[in-house]
Amino acid sequence: MEDKYNNELKKIFRADQLTNDVSALIVYSRDLNPLGTIFMQEGKTMPMPDIVVWPETIEQIQKLVVFANEHKVPLIPYGSGSGVCGGANPVGGGIIVDMKRMNRIRHIDPYSLVAEVESGIIGELFERELNAKGYTLGHFPSSIWCSTVGGWLAARSAGQLSSRYGKIEDMVLGIEAVMPDGDVLKTKVTPRSATGPDFKQLLVGSEGTLGIITSATLRINRYPESRRFNGIMFHTVKDALDAIRELMQTGIKPAAVRLYDEIDTFMIGSGKGSKKLLSSEQEDEHIEDLKKVIMKKAERMVLTIPSVVNSVIKLLPANNLLILTFEGTPRMTEAEQDIAVKIMNAHGGKDLGEEPGKYWWEHRYDVSFNLSPIYSIKAFADTIEVATTWDKLLLLYEKMRNAIGKHALVMAHFSHVYQEGGSIYFTFAASTYDEKKKEALYRQTWKDALDTAVSVGATISHHHGIGMLKAQWMDKEHGKAMEIYRQLKKVVDPNNIMNPGKMGL
Amino acid sequence: MEDKYNNELKKIFRADQLTNDVSALIVYSRDLNPLGTIFMQEGKTMPMPDIVVWPETIEQIQKLVVFANEHKVPLIPYGSGSGVCGGANPVGGGIIVDMKRMNRIRHIDPYSLVAEVESGIIGELFERELNAKGYTLGHFPSSIWCSTVGGWLAARSAGQLSSRYGKIEDMVLGIEAVMPDGDVLKTKVTPRSATGPDFKQLLVGSEGTLGIITSATLRINRYPESRRFNGIMFHTVKDALDAIRELMQTGIKPAAVRLYDEIDTFMIGSGKGSKKLLSSEQEDEHIEDLKKVIMKKAERMVLTIPSVVNSVIKLLPANNLLILTFEGTPRMTEAEQDIAVKIMNAHGGKDLGEEPGKYWWEHRYDVSFNLSPIYSIKAFADTIEVATTWDKLLLLYEKMRNAIGKHALVMAHFSHVYQEGGSIYFTFAASTYDEKKKEALYRQTWKDALDTAVSVGATISHHHGIGMLKAQWMDKEHGKAMEIYRQLKKVVDPNNIMNPGKMGL
Repeated sequence: MEDKYNNELKKIFRADQLTNDVSALIVYSRDLNPLGTIFMQEGKTMPMPDIVVWPETIEQIQKLVVFANEHKVPLIPYGSGSGVCGGANPVGGGIIVDMKRMNRIRHIDPYSLVAEVESGIIGELFERELNAKGYTLGHFPSSIWCSTVGGWLAARSAGQLSSRYGKIEDMVLGIEAVMPDGDVLKTKVTPRSATGPDFKQLLVGSEGTLGIITSATLRINRYPESRRFNGIMFHTVKDALDAIRELMQTGIKPAAVRLYDEIDTFMIGSGKGSKKLLSSEQEDEHIEDLKKVIMKKAERMVLTIPSVVNSVIKLLPANNLLILTFEGTPRMTEAEQDIAVKIMNAHGGKDLGEEPGKYWWEHRYDVSFNLSPIYSIKAFADTIEVATTWDKLLLLYEKMRNAIGKHALVMAHFSHVYQEGGSIYFTFAASTYDEKKKEALYRQTWKDALDTAVSVGATISHHHGIGMLKAQWMDKEHGKAMEIYRQLKKVVDPNNIMNPGKMGL
Repeated sequence: MEDKYNNELKKIFRADQLTNDVSALIVYSRDLNPLGTIFMQEGKTMPMPDIVVWPETIEQIQKLVVFANEHKVPLIPYGSGSGVCGGANPVGGGIIVDMKRMNRIRHIDPYSLVAEVESGIIGELFERELNAKGYTLGHFPSSIWCSTVGGWLAARSAGQLSSRYGKIEDMVLGIEAVMPDGDVLKTKVTPRSATGPDFKQLLVGSEGTLGIITSATLRINRYPESRRFNGIMFHTVKDALDAIRELMQTGIKPAAVRLYDEIDTFMIGSGKGSKKLLSSEQEDEHIEDLKKVIMKKAERMVLTIPSVVNSVIKLLPANNLLILTFEGTPRMTEAEQDIAVKIMNAHGGKDLGEEPGKYWWEHRYDVSFNLSPIYSIKAFADTIEVATTWDKLLLLYEKMRNAIGKHALVMAHFSHVYQEGGSIYFTFAASTYDEKKKEALYRQTWKDALDTAVSVGATISHHHGIGMLKAQWMDKEHGKAMEIYRQLKKVVDPNNIMNPGKMGL
């Protein structure tokens, strides 16, 4: 960016609020989408921003937006960079708008149980502040240490206790954003209303394409008086899904409901804490078989011949671990747990007691930090989260597992469930003998996976968002609604300054 | 409308699918907004449509939309005409699109508990169809006999069991609509997704201004195994609200939570069923006092001097009746009821047992038919439903009761509650000595009521919608978002054919 831009920006921001230092620009050239890492391994760089700014007030953002419109410069809102779809990548250069200095909790209302918070606050810090006052947001994405409230809203985040507390879009009662023309949009805070379309739900999920979210008013909850845990082992994914469906359709609201398929069950049990997760009796011979097979085909060998490994795994008798947790008043969690365990038993689930659930609770954020080591062995890993109604969920699981399994070692868990269906979270890892084909393999795996999701009728993302990674599927996802989105984008942001090149717009 | 239009329409519709018979045009000139009745009493007519059509297929609607664009003719989607805000009034003439012949239940999925239903089906008929198969939608507006699924969605309807099942916007998993350019928009049916803005929530609440809703996929529920009832009497509205807030914030989901203030409690108990609602012991001297006062100032006298009556009522010791119902498995409703009654007692509520709740349940739709007799005594009556967070709810109640009470006899119930707040449903009745001033009095009552709601920070409608009646408050309700709505409307419906003159657009 030319120096005169820099000088103009210095009229808006103090010197410590902006930088064009090249190391910063490299850091801000990417989010956690694995393509960024693959590119780095190949010595390629990603498009860099021209400058990074850290606004501290709404007024500064408004001035920045006016500046950006004048000079047709892209603005890329940035939370904590933990997105995995390239949503915060500055694909056409421009200005990274790092929101982390707008991190105040403006207001906690103990009477209505709502909190107004600025979008740049790190999730865990917000949660701790609430906990100290006796509340919880109830939103626990595994990225909670490295993601912001604004990022959650922009990409429709889900937390691990979504069955009880909902996704972030279910918690938002009011939103504030600087729009592409520099005006502030602030919706009325109300439990519900019947005054036209829900404009909150236009900004939520828009990943910075329609405006910069500056704050939100969120529902909070009393910190639960009691918390109960269960681990239930099922022989088949189908049995487990039947039991979960039955549970959710009774109208009970467990906090966490997470079903790991056999290889995912093995993986979460294979670390240093495996003894806690599964006692030696519970870790029966099937699991041992599975462990031996995977160990034998260790590291690159496993990952380069995924179809062999996946086939072998399928031949093994399986075990699938379901984690259930319950939160609330003691009377209610007792009743819920009792009903839940009866339903699980009726579907062939074996109650392992509270230890697996407690272990999961203590290690619930680890997954966000477990994928990096894969890269040190020159392989790559990623996650794909899709969702559909119960009638298609098992079919989706099988078809996508096959589609991904052609290219990669694949495991899955069912992480968010509802009365009408649920989401599947696939983790895959792969590599190639030919380093140069890594990107192609990565892209092909995604293509086969999402084409399959579309063919089954599932949504292509449950809680990670779209960014660049899934942009090409947006027309298939939305059909006519995508045209409305493009029309709206054009009229609201005629200079296309707001996070251009994303979402298939 | 000219004959040539008529001839063109006959190419789209069979002869029995359209009419321009004047009696039909008069009937379709208004919904249930009281202004229509006041106008009729004064011998004035409302603007009439040019023609009424009853489409039977999406293709017919698509052709109609093409026709309307060509000739710049307004299309006014029409369900069952039970709206109370003039939303279906053909203010600039045009074509009434009565959707009631598109009333098929396309699909019930017992596995995912979802049903796809066309928008023209009458609510009660849909519910009965579901009941016969062992399900319930859980949506019980008092208009259920005279409103359609499409109308519910278009105006963000709430049912009496909303605390458990949500409002209609919480139940909708997919929507289908013919857009103003004739294309069909159909969203993917999924429990949740993270693929951009929620386009469903643009159409929901848009009252026909952005398209004609043709079908929706809704969450359904197993018909409850058990249902429990309570009537609880409180001395003050404040005590009752404190108890309700405590109940909702424990995370329990009762089905119905309805608190009647003292005069509303008297009114629902004054009909032929009063003995059932309140036994003679329960109907204590305070209620008797209240009854005497109101009876003494009967009919027009009561209504013409509302400030006197309202003042007298305020001096009387009050009693406020709370109805609670619980639905679900026996184990859960037992636990919920037990917890609820303990909370009620702790706040001074006196449990009257299940009779008041059962009586309410059996007469729960009566209110939609109780206002008409007021008109036979040349007075008028209407309802105003607003909502806000708990911190402002009692203030809103007091201020609005005073604002409305200057002009009318006013009573209220708190009909929909959430963890973060609730709605208030005011019923008012008034008249004037000078018949010609009736409309002015009606409008002034509304103005003072909604100006007050705005000043407190409440939403101006919780579940009746906007139509024409509340259009002038839309800018105050939404601020900048209203500008976005107008921009969107202009680009999506450039010829302004979709229900023009509504929603403040």
